[in-house]
Amino acid sequence: MDTPRDTRFQAVAARLGHSFDGPLQVGGHYTPIVQHGTTLYISGQVPRVGQTVLITGRVGADVTLAQAQTAAQIGVMRGLTLLRQTLGSLDQIERVLRLTVYVQCSPDFTLLSEVADGASDVLHEILGEAGVHTRTSVGVYQLPKNASVELDLIAASRPAGG
Amino acid sequence: MDTPRDTRFQAVAARLGHSFDGPLQVGGHYTPIVQHGTTLYISGQVPRVGQTVLITGRVGADVTLAQAQTAAQIGVMRGLTLLRQTLGSLDQIERVLRLTVYVQCSPDFTLLSEVADGASDVLHEILGEAGVHTRTSVGVYQLPKNASVELDLIAASRPAGG
Amino acid sequence: MDTPRDTRFQAVAARLGHSFDGPLQVGGHYTPIVQHGTTLYISGQVPRVGQTVLITGRVGADVTLAQAQTAAQIGVMRGLTLLRQTLGSLDQIERVLRLTVYVQCSPDFTLLSEVADGASDVLHEILGEAGVHTRTSVGVYQLPKNASVELDLIAASRPAGG
Repeated sequence: MDTPRDTRFQAVAARLGHSFDGPLQVGGHYTPIVQHGTTLYISGQVPRVGQTVLITGRVGADVTLAQAQTAAQIGVMRGLTLLRQTLGSLDQIERVLRLTVYVQCSPDFTLLSEVADGASDVLHEILGEAGVHTRTSVGVYQLPKNASVELDLIAASRPAGG
Repeated sequence: MDTPRDTRFQAVAARLGHSFDGPLQVGGHYTPIVQHGTTLYISGQVPRVGQTVLITGRVGADVTLAQAQTAAQIGVMRGLTLLRQTLGSLDQIERVLRLTVYVQCSPDFTLLSEVADGASDVLHEILGEAGVHTRTSVGVYQLPKNASVELDLIAASRPAGG
Repeated sequence: MDTPRDTRFQAVAARLGHSFDGPLQVGGHYTPIVQHGTTLYISGQVPRVGQTVLITGRVGADVTLAQAQTAAQIGVMRGLTLLRQTLGSLDQIERVLRLTVYVQCSPDFTLLSEVADGASDVLHEILGEAGVHTRTSVGVYQLPKNASVELDLIAASRPAGG
């Protein structure tokens, strides 16, 4: 049975117009998520759906703030998908601890926190207080596959039996 | 009663000429500090005092090394302020685990470790051996509000009752 | 007696043509590695051997992908060296949790994951499944000492007595 968090997750997915049901694969000798005790580390997520990175190019030049916020939303939905797959349910997330948002930007584009708000708002919408996290936003020179935004997370799961 | 760490904190604040007594607020759906067990995560800090980011622009072009070091000092004092507010006392910090320093720099400005020394020296001055941390320093393309330096931290608190 | 992990470490060192036997010192008030419980944080590593940063300049302009991969390999070998020195043996590594790879790149160089593969492949070659980590790769504007690549790690040690 879907929990309220699941329902809100599906609502955001529908709003974005993308499904996050498939496997989120990575190439090479790394993995999208690792659990250590109750701490979960999630690899950098770009706005990829299926095999395609949907939003590419430099924010402030090729890409608008609104598009970059959408990119951040897709990235964080991928992160939540990984947490759900690993923990069995979004309800097993005790807290999102850290979100780092990297924005491929033009030299004078300073609205990096505003880009990151796209991801933060989704975390809060779906997880409520458990989604309120610490955050760092920076503007970088390039990102893998020319993605406009990349983000990674650290989250805490509820203790086993908790 | 002020502890030696408090006294040294006030000495650095006086030397910088800024008060760190007010609330350190952030907008949006994130928070400046989260505790998970004995691990504390602190959001990216820019050299903001009150409502103003004091040191902005590109280090190596608009901003000198000395100014950038001051920016790093202000950022780390904000981080210590958050730790003190959360833990009740700087004496509850067992160790600073990680400092990441992002410097908005000109293309050929390589003195990024030297900028970060501004923050590392303050941590050591106030916390002693507990302030000796791991560190990563990178030069980035932009930072929120055109800040010259942004830094985040991970710290460990003493175990409860410890 | 050398363990299989030690033997594989020496094989990679021989292939790179560098020794990682000396102390890995840092200047200033920080330290290359800190342990907190079973979590180990490692400072940003550049491709330094002895006193020299071997691979410098902008990847995609001054430096090829292959050279950048070598830089990533040297950085991660330094990280493994620090873990071995701290834990006594590479066999005490339970898991590499997180690898963050910063690449000083030209504006259109997007093969940042491919650079990071240099480090990820070494972790897997030496540690096997314990070396399979989460990863974030970003392209930055500058790095300390004009290094082409910098990387940092978080790792987990086996529980004491484990």
